[in-house]
Amino acid sequence: MVEVIKTTGDMKARAALSRARGDTVGFVPTMGALHEGHLSLIRRARAENDVVIISIFVNPVQFDRNDDYRGYPRPLERDLAMAYEEGVDVAFVPDVEQVYPEGYSTFIEVRGSLTDVLCGASRPGHFRGVTTVVTKLFNIIRPDRAYFGQKDLQQAAIIKRLVRDLNMGVEVVTLPTVREADGLALSSRNRHLSGEQRRTAVSIHRALTRATELLISGEMDTAVIVCEVRGVLNEGGIARIDYVSVVDPETLEEVSEARPGAVVAVAAWVGDIRLIDNTALGVGPESQLFMHLNVETV
Amino acid sequence: MVEVIKTTGDMKARAALSRARGDTVGFVPTMGALHEGHLSLIRRARAENDVVIISIFVNPVQFDRNDDYRGYPRPLERDLAMAYEEGVDVAFVPDVEQVYPEGYSTFIEVRGSLTDVLCGASRPGHFRGVTTVVTKLFNIIRPDRAYFGQKDLQQAAIIKRLVRDLNMGVEVVTLPTVREADGLALSSRNRHLSGEQRRTAVSIHRALTRATELLISGEMDTAVIVCEVRGVLNEGGIARIDYVSVVDPETLEEVSEARPGAVVAVAAWVGDIRLIDNTALGVGPESQLFMHLNVETV
Repeated sequence: MVEVIKTTGDMKARAALSRARGDTVGFVPTMGALHEGHLSLIRRARAENDVVIISIFVNPVQFDRNDDYRGYPRPLERDLAMAYEEGVDVAFVPDVEQVYPEGYSTFIEVRGSLTDVLCGASRPGHFRGVTTVVTKLFNIIRPDRAYFGQKDLQQAAIIKRLVRDLNMGVEVVTLPTVREADGLALSSRNRHLSGEQRRTAVSIHRALTRATELLISGEMDTAVIVCEVRGVLNEGGIARIDYVSVVDPETLEEVSEARPGAVVAVAAWVGDIRLIDNTALGVGPESQLFMHLNVETV
Repeated sequence: MVEVIKTTGDMKARAALSRARGDTVGFVPTMGALHEGHLSLIRRARAENDVVIISIFVNPVQFDRNDDYRGYPRPLERDLAMAYEEGVDVAFVPDVEQVYPEGYSTFIEVRGSLTDVLCGASRPGHFRGVTTVVTKLFNIIRPDRAYFGQKDLQQAAIIKRLVRDLNMGVEVVTLPTVREADGLALSSRNRHLSGEQRRTAVSIHRALTRATELLISGEMDTAVIVCEVRGVLNEGGIARIDYVSVVDPETLEEVSEARPGAVVAVAAWVGDIRLIDNTALGVGPESQLFMHLNVETV
């Protein structure tokens, strides 16, 4: 079985023991409800480090909506079984009082252009919650490497900035988005989709594919690309769109001229489920990860 | 000579080397212009650790007034000589671009009652600057213990909260305020006082002494104590007072009934120099540090 640790004190001591032994530590922070996207991070961590630690913690301070927090899936036993299968050594599973004890007052904020745009504009306080919990987890575990998915493009850019700005000395590794066979990006929130919503959701990937086709056909104007992407989403039955934006993947600044490597990012609602996805323009399908079989959406 | 390190990369490597050797590291963060207050921290660090590191960095983001930042004394050669005398091993002396390189965006904030009151109310952004730089310095050096003076009462309370909240695993040691023979608390800003201002400034200590005398004589009402303290300041020629407050030293909450251990805190202006000081009520003079000779105020 995976070693399950519930307190920050025990986790700190366990990680310190690994360091004292000279072991390298790979860390995959998660909110649980593990899917193939998480597993691809865990496998890379397993390949690159002596010890693999995951955290499973649904972080209340990064939710801007209470119903989303309460409804977030928490299939702990299944998560631990999956982690065991992938060779995870330690799962840190603290409760909220461990992470935010009474009197807790400290928050970390990456300010400016990285956080003001995209999801930062639609979800006030979200990234402050992410950077706060990631800083705490990094301080408790002090990993050599930490692994994040490219689906959360903005999160990855912000965490790289956080680590650099605060001199944390953690190598941040980002890995490609894992998709179901029809292209839907894996997300713990997909399991909330009804059958019909699931069919609607795939139009996000279809819209991103259209953006890449446009670039290949010579379209450089990102305003045209954004307009077409919105069109595909609307046709597919998605009316409520938080943003469609073509950005530089590191600075997240909007680019007016499409170029290979620029990223098209989408956040849109299917029913009351908010989904995000992105794709790098001009990057061939060989660099994308598709699953051969659909994952069961519970 | 003291080993002087100027880059964050070199400092990180040097501190890691000490840890790898099994040495304990004591850290004294300073803005330079060292005086006996700093030296008392360094001596304690020297007594309790294998390696003593100080930082000398005038941190721009904790200044709320640009003239105060520009005018802050920077007698580096003298500081390094004093550090050498006290057995400091390493002085970390980064420039502003090392600490806040272009694109720097991350800030740490302790929110709520600890930062809203006292100096936090008079100096917007000050403590955000302090907690940000202290977090960075702690991440670069990863000391076992860090040393702060009780003169900066609120700073000490906030840093203790920061370290606990962010699971930093640094022991925060606070030491009593060091005073000149007439009671003036040592401060790098004292050197800006003219001869007459220097004589006026001592009324801050006189006012705090009066507060203790009132408690000893049976006065429990902090409103009366605050009023008397203000009276002594005014009589001594200090008209501009940011605050006089009787607080719990850990929570910084105002107390309405004076009790031993509660702290009377003062911030007031002598000319255009803002001075702070505080004293714990009912604590005998034997616990206070007075210097036998006046320090030369350059």
